[in-house]
Amino acid sequence: MPGTVITVTCLNPALDITYEVDGVDWSGVNRPGQVRVRPGGKGLNVARTLLALGAQTRVLGLAGGATGADVTTALAGLGVPATFTPAGGETRRTFAVVDTGRGHTALFNEPGPEVTADEYATFVAAYEKALADSAAVVLSGSLPRGLPAGAYAGLVAAAAAAGVPAVLDTHGVALAQGAAAGPAIVKPNLAELEALAGRVLGGADGPDLRAVSAAAEELRAAGPEAVVASLGPGGLLAITGQGAWRAVPPGEVAGNPTGAGDAVTAGLAHGLLLGRPWPERLRHAVALGTAAVASPVAGEFSLADYARMLTEVTVEASQ
Amino acid sequence: MPGTVITVTCLNPALDITYEVDGVDWSGVNRPGQVRVRPGGKGLNVARTLLALGAQTRVLGLAGGATGADVTTALAGLGVPATFTPAGGETRRTFAVVDTGRGHTALFNEPGPEVTADEYATFVAAYEKALADSAAVVLSGSLPRGLPAGAYAGLVAAAAAAGVPAVLDTHGVALAQGAAAGPAIVKPNLAELEALAGRVLGGADGPDLRAVSAAAEELRAAGPEAVVASLGPGGLLAITGQGAWRAVPPGEVAGNPTGAGDAVTAGLAHGLLLGRPWPERLRHAVALGTAAVASPVAGEFSLADYARMLTEVTVEASQ
Repeated sequence: MPGTVITVTCLNPALDITYEVDGVDWSGVNRPGQVRVRPGGKGLNVARTLLALGAQTRVLGLAGGATGADVTTALAGLGVPATFTPAGGETRRTFAVVDTGRGHTALFNEPGPEVTADEYATFVAAYEKALADSAAVVLSGSLPRGLPAGAYAGLVAAAAAAGVPAVLDTHGVALAQGAAAGPAIVKPNLAELEALAGRVLGGADGPDLRAVSAAAEELRAAGPEAVVASLGPGGLLAITGQGAWRAVPPGEVAGNPTGAGDAVTAGLAHGLLLGRPWPERLRHAVALGTAAVASPVAGEFSLADYARMLTEVTVEASQ
Repeated sequence: MPGTVITVTCLNPALDITYEVDGVDWSGVNRPGQVRVRPGGKGLNVARTLLALGAQTRVLGLAGGATGADVTTALAGLGVPATFTPAGGETRRTFAVVDTGRGHTALFNEPGPEVTADEYATFVAAYEKALADSAAVVLSGSLPRGLPAGAYAGLVAAAAAAGVPAVLDTHGVALAQGAAAGPAIVKPNLAELEALAGRVLGGADGPDLRAVSAAAEELRAAGPEAVVASLGPGGLLAITGQGAWRAVPPGEVAGNPTGAGDAVTAGLAHGLLLGRPWPERLRHAVALGTAAVASPVAGEFSLADYARMLTEVTVEASQ
């Protein structure tokens, strides 16, 4: 840990636009009753949670075009320190159309820019410079088009070479290759762990904890120091070099689960920074994730919810 | 005509975003196959058509926020000279989802900023300054929130005081009050003329030309020097101080009728600038409107289509 800053990468940020319409006419003209615009992308949610916890945080990423400028301006307005390497392509928008009458949401995701090798090399140079004062790095979200699946593996290896622990939250081949590069923590959710394991890890009743443990053990054997599987309302299951634990929230929490996984990632990185023992690290991560579900906006949570959840989360050794 | 520039107002510009999706999932995640972004608003379509005709043109309007900056940047990229008075509110987006499989389009129109009295006073000062070298002004589109319905009437009167003829293309009370201020031309479409007349002017077979003429005469009696009713594929019907004419395109043209009315408005303003006699002015306006229908993008047309249509449009005295 050469420094005190948590560096969070956001390689494919977005401008999230949400329209609320009561009874959408899908072949006519609609006038949204409410329009919300905010910077989006998993890394940005992680960074906002870390800042709310009082951790020194910076975002590094790639952004381009008018939408990239909008994201940069919006982050400055939220007080999130962010440096984006310019991309020639246009940063993506997401449009969510919430039909408040029918209770449906249609989501439209633009692809985002195709990043060139030169642009990525410029980003990597900024990232390697940032490692010099970083306590940890968080590598979060899917890779933009144009980057090889091994991009996260390269960033994990560079962090390891600088003595900086990495927390990796991605999926598919990028997760498999990144895990093999030896990060401190990988945080798959159930679907991501199932995709990696190549088998179903539960049924209609929810995840089969024995099967999840076995898949997490297999993933840990491939390289990471710890695997933390996030199971939604089922909490976290952690396989680490110090032991295995399960941390469970008090009960079903109503709200918006989008961004809860990012709050968990932020809690794990914060615990790494503070040197919290694993059971406490998991307690804080679950409390943050649960508080995030109770908040309507991804990347936000109430400190009162967080404090209350800390007393209600149960942590026990697994198996 | 103190000058040579056609000044086009665009009080409520937009950033038009169009997604093409083959088979939209209205309660799930969609990845648009194509994303198009362009500056929108009727005034901008008029200005682009005038520039393509080689007329000196400037856009004056109000714009604000990140989307206002995006519109300004996009117009510069298209080579459209535009000066926007800063608005504190956010310029609107329009979001169109074209379901290419089902042939539906869902349109979502944001409301746009609420303009303050101070902001509008700043705009009016810029407008009055621009009159000094204007050959004509085009006042086009709906008024933004916050402005009184008489705003266009004030702009028409200021133009008249400076000896600059005004072309007005709007609807409802703004049209009624603007017409009473004595513009050179008003250009309602059939629905706008019906709303103003308070009666239906046609049936399933199309417009009743005698009824349209009567309603246009009534509107002309209220103040404008000429009324040009646009009847879609039925062409134009003009009631002027020099006579009444009807100009008709050669036949049904396949394409995108959005923006065809703006091309007609541009043709009328261009004819005014060049001092074309009314029959020729109408011939050019119909040819431009028809060429615009044949182009997939509002505000664009092919000069070859325009030239061909000029030979195919028929103009005859009406009644």
